[in-house]
Amino acid sequence: MASQEIEALTQALARLPGLGPRSARRAVLHLMKRRESALTPLLRALEKVNENLSVCAICGNVDTTDPCGVCADPRRDARLLCVVEEVSDLWALDRSRLFPGKFHVLGGRLSALEGVRPEDLNIAGLVSRVAAGGVDEVVLAMNATLEGQTTAHYLAERLESYPVRLTQLAHGLPVGGELDYLDEGTLAQALRARRPVA
Amino acid sequence: MASQEIEALTQALARLPGLGPRSARRAVLHLMKRRESALTPLLRALEKVNENLSVCAICGNVDTTDPCGVCADPRRDARLLCVVEEVSDLWALDRSRLFPGKFHVLGGRLSALEGVRPEDLNIAGLVSRVAAGGVDEVVLAMNATLEGQTTAHYLAERLESYPVRLTQLAHGLPVGGELDYLDEGTLAQALRARRPVA
Repeated sequence: MASQEIEALTQALARLPGLGPRSARRAVLHLMKRRESALTPLLRALEKVNENLSVCAICGNVDTTDPCGVCADPRRDARLLCVVEEVSDLWALDRSRLFPGKFHVLGGRLSALEGVRPEDLNIAGLVSRVAAGGVDEVVLAMNATLEGQTTAHYLAERLESYPVRLTQLAHGLPVGGELDYLDEGTLAQALRARRPVA
Repeated sequence: MASQEIEALTQALARLPGLGPRSARRAVLHLMKRRESALTPLLRALEKVNENLSVCAICGNVDTTDPCGVCADPRRDARLLCVVEEVSDLWALDRSRLFPGKFHVLGGRLSALEGVRPEDLNIAGLVSRVAAGGVDEVVLAMNATLEGQTTAHYLAERLESYPVRLTQLAHGLPVGGELDYLDEGTLAQALRARRPVA
């Protein structure tokens, strides 16, 4: 019985990750009951992002500026380049504030199953950034999945002729991980990469 | 490191019920990566609801029309009036499509603790709707809480001089409810209101 406009808003919200039809309905009611404090601020924020939305021509990040905030930040170490599969990975690593360098987003991973080939990813952009010089280390921060690791190996081959250090993220026990609950693959990685007790 | 615009959108989304800061960030990224299929539709839907948002002068529902869709629907039985605490209750009952009558939203419940008095609720509107005639039955569909039931009793007193049948929702076992897991209050209600086996 809700009006068409309300139905459309509910459906648009329900498509967001983390919201289902039920919580979308609650969210719509929340917005409608709080026009000044919730609906209008959300509307204005969406308008601004929509106006300024751009994909960074350098690294492939999405931001409201191009070059993106990361690429434009002079305090970041341009000699360190971290390659990730998706924008969400860039955001996750950036949030941790542990990586002081720049990023490069591939836009996916090689996948025979899904028919994703090297030319479908932003690998040419990566190679030309490395070829341009000024990069000392490339961190291949692919996911610890079969496809992520295949992609990392492929990139390592593509970049091996350049004078850069290639590294990858350590694999092993996650913080708080209990041996009893971890999969065999993780245990095998952790054992293989075991280190002397300091 | 996210831009101010992205930060503002994240915060506006994070204030929605059902979304926290983490899922709001995922939602923002989802929107930014899908401008045409997600961001723009959500923006347009919000604009339309914002333009047309109104509180129904008759029943207190929020909708994009005034009178609201429920009050304007000629197929609904105006002799049946269901009184609820909040707009969310109206939406919940309306969704069930089990109630063929009209609604009245109080905008809260009487509460000594929170200092909510009868004049703080839309009780005058209810009384004048009943006094205007044409209503045969008033369903007091308050929550099964102490404050909800106090409110129902108060309304019953206010309406007892009018020639209307006053009813309230049945209390008892919820569908699928297991005795072992139900609180004593519900069990007591279910026992007290027990009925002969058909």
